[in-house]
Amino acid sequence: MMSPFTVKEMSEIDEVIERARELVEPDSNTIEKARIAEKEIEARLKKLLKYYPEIEFRFLGSYARDTWLPESLEIDVFLLFPESYTMDELEKIALEIGISAVDTHELRYASHPYVHGTVKGVEIDIVPCYRLSKIEKIKSAVDRTPFHHKWVKERVKGKESDVRLLKRFMKVTGVYGAEYRIKGFSGYLCELLVIHYGSFLNTVKEAARWKRNLVIDPSRKKAHPKKGLENIFVIDPVDEKRNVAANLSINSLARFVEACRLFLRAPSPDYFVPKTPSFDENRLRAEVEGRFVYCVVFERPPVVEDNLYTQLERAEKRIRKLLEENEFSVMKSSHTAGKKCYLIFEVLSGQVSPVKKHYGPNFENYTNSMKFIEKNREYSRFFENGRYMTYRRRKFTEARDLIEHAIRSEYRSMGKDISEFVKKGRVVERSEILKYGELKAHLSDFLGVG
Amino acid sequence: MMSPFTVKEMSEIDEVIERARELVEPDSNTIEKARIAEKEIEARLKKLLKYYPEIEFRFLGSYARDTWLPESLEIDVFLLFPESYTMDELEKIALEIGISAVDTHELRYASHPYVHGTVKGVEIDIVPCYRLSKIEKIKSAVDRTPFHHKWVKERVKGKESDVRLLKRFMKVTGVYGAEYRIKGFSGYLCELLVIHYGSFLNTVKEAARWKRNLVIDPSRKKAHPKKGLENIFVIDPVDEKRNVAANLSINSLARFVEACRLFLRAPSPDYFVPKTPSFDENRLRAEVEGRFVYCVVFERPPVVEDNLYTQLERAEKRIRKLLEENEFSVMKSSHTAGKKCYLIFEVLSGQVSPVKKHYGPNFENYTNSMKFIEKNREYSRFFENGRYMTYRRRKFTEARDLIEHAIRSEYRSMGKDISEFVKKGRVVERSEILKYGELKAHLSDFLGVG
Repeated sequence: MMSPFTVKEMSEIDEVIERARELVEPDSNTIEKARIAEKEIEARLKKLLKYYPEIEFRFLGSYARDTWLPESLEIDVFLLFPESYTMDELEKIALEIGISAVDTHELRYASHPYVHGTVKGVEIDIVPCYRLSKIEKIKSAVDRTPFHHKWVKERVKGKESDVRLLKRFMKVTGVYGAEYRIKGFSGYLCELLVIHYGSFLNTVKEAARWKRNLVIDPSRKKAHPKKGLENIFVIDPVDEKRNVAANLSINSLARFVEACRLFLRAPSPDYFVPKTPSFDENRLRAEVEGRFVYCVVFERPPVVEDNLYTQLERAEKRIRKLLEENEFSVMKSSHTAGKKCYLIFEVLSGQVSPVKKHYGPNFENYTNSMKFIEKNREYSRFFENGRYMTYRRRKFTEARDLIEHAIRSEYRSMGKDISEFVKKGRVVERSEILKYGELKAHLSDFLGVG
Repeated sequence: MMSPFTVKEMSEIDEVIERARELVEPDSNTIEKARIAEKEIEARLKKLLKYYPEIEFRFLGSYARDTWLPESLEIDVFLLFPESYTMDELEKIALEIGISAVDTHELRYASHPYVHGTVKGVEIDIVPCYRLSKIEKIKSAVDRTPFHHKWVKERVKGKESDVRLLKRFMKVTGVYGAEYRIKGFSGYLCELLVIHYGSFLNTVKEAARWKRNLVIDPSRKKAHPKKGLENIFVIDPVDEKRNVAANLSINSLARFVEACRLFLRAPSPDYFVPKTPSFDENRLRAEVEGRFVYCVVFERPPVVEDNLYTQLERAEKRIRKLLEENEFSVMKSSHTAGKKCYLIFEVLSGQVSPVKKHYGPNFENYTNSMKFIEKNREYSRFFENGRYMTYRRRKFTEARDLIEHAIRSEYRSMGKDISEFVKKGRVVERSEILKYGELKAHLSDFLGVG
């Protein structure tokens, strides 16, 4: 298939890509620093594992495959336990070893707790998992990692720089990361795409024509559309049933596809340089003053980011639904978290009529018609296309009051870790929202003036 | 079929109906006055028609069948012309004779002009039509009248008082009259129903269970539902294809059915006594102040009522559509005419956001996506379920301004006879509407406080 758009001469694109490689490669100092840390952690683990001869350690992840971005150096070390260990034993021993192996540490939580720390100034994750003969036996998601590493390691050789290009390109586009906050592409997914399509440029060219019903099968080097599919499905080469793109939202997909098209039309190294968020303060103020924008602000609860964002989305949807049920037409809603948490809503009108239409039966329904007549006396009844109608007084005529009511009374359904924080939140509107400086970039984006 | 509701003892209903008969029968003075006028017009027409021996006159309509309501005495005289006359000759001669036959006169217009006048203080219509052997030959609607009369005259004998009851019952319910203003039941339709069901009470009992898909066939004394039918069809006994209820709106039908049910549940002579419209001034003021109600007021154009109401409805629908297109959610709209004309609109919100959502293509559409990106730069773009979106500035944020704009610029599509009057109209809102005293009863009804 030929593109209907002028794709610039290969030489120009190639030139841009070659220049961009310099932007995504770690410099020799960083590499040296990483090597030193790697050697050190290797030495320490060898020593510590003397007492556990059946536990093995391996370097896995982007560091081990040399596909890491210089700004995100983090060495992943996995402790592989025999299946004979219980989950409790595995956790306990892994934490002990992990804490002993690093200079500074904190505990983090994925499927189970693990040690995140530093060695010689480099960030290290020490993650326990089971050493399995077959993928079918996995007990938690991390058990898949050794299989992923094995599949990718050889195949990605010679394409490491292309993976870095793709990761950075996605990062700048705002779609890199499978976490709930981003709903984008994971590092592993980037590697699979570069392996599948052969290069960064080829990935970009192909993605420019992606449709949401595409199935990509890297292990067979095949891709085909599938009827009824609502978002792309990238078959995990080590686990056929699993969609590596399961966390990708349709909007992140669309943003990536758009970025690919724009890059092909006018290639530039800018696509690989992180942007500092900027906004026009005056325009932002004018927009937020003139439009019906409301923001629920509350303290950030101490909960891991993925859980926080899941629950922020839930609270946002709940309030949105309440607004819609009360005939406030929601144009857009959003959520984000910084030092505080924010739920943002823009509605078509901030104020609605004090009465709402109340729908009754069709006149043909004798029984229900008589009941309707008995029951509805606040306003007189009338017909619309033969259907009974009347008015009822509305409880909330102001969107602000309704949102206030929602957070004070309906907070229980807004996510278990955040509900009590939501309840104590405040509703701010119009320019009052600008008091929260950390929200301005997000708000500019939200209002379409970013 | 038995009613699921307590139908009062026949004796009570019968008693109420007997009392009501007195309310609908003309008194002896009125009858005497009518007879005198009848004799007089008969004598005059005999004299005048000496010169046109082939033109015959007949008394038709409710007076001739003795089914008239005392408050609406009007004698219909038809001049029956042979088919050899052209339409022009017929019109010319009929007007000449008509004008000579009455004491005072004015011209009125149905399918063609006719004389409306008075004789000895009684209102008279003198209407020309063709004398036809077969209904298939009719040239205009009035040619059907002699056939209707012939069919009804004998069959309605002994049931005249029941027809009067039904007419008055419908009048009080607000559904009597086939004209565009009412969209209700014609006098002829009332006669057919009483003939079909045998009595007033039986009509009411049956109508209480009517459904909108009912076909009533008086000539065969049959009725049956018909799939897909959207309003009742009463087969004209003299013209099988014609629906006698063609002008009946579904809402007038529903109101009649409801009135029948309420009468059966609690029979009362009140159903036969015209109500003087009343309203609670204070409540009306409170409602109109608190809700988003707008009224276009303009001079009444000199045009017959049916044409006026057709065009008022058209103008109302046009403005309603413009409001909806601009995202003002219209709760209800209406029109009426007194000394002035009124178009009334109630919206959910009087003010909407200065921006509106502008929908683009799905991201999959490469060509249109690129065009969308090129074209929409006022606000930044975003995705909703993979579809391009952006904002655009809205021209009208106030419903009032939009309606003002509509009558000043879009008046041409609002009915040929009224458009220039609409254009010169004013938009009033909230309590300003109450300045128009003649509108208050209609407005109370409109707002559900009638």
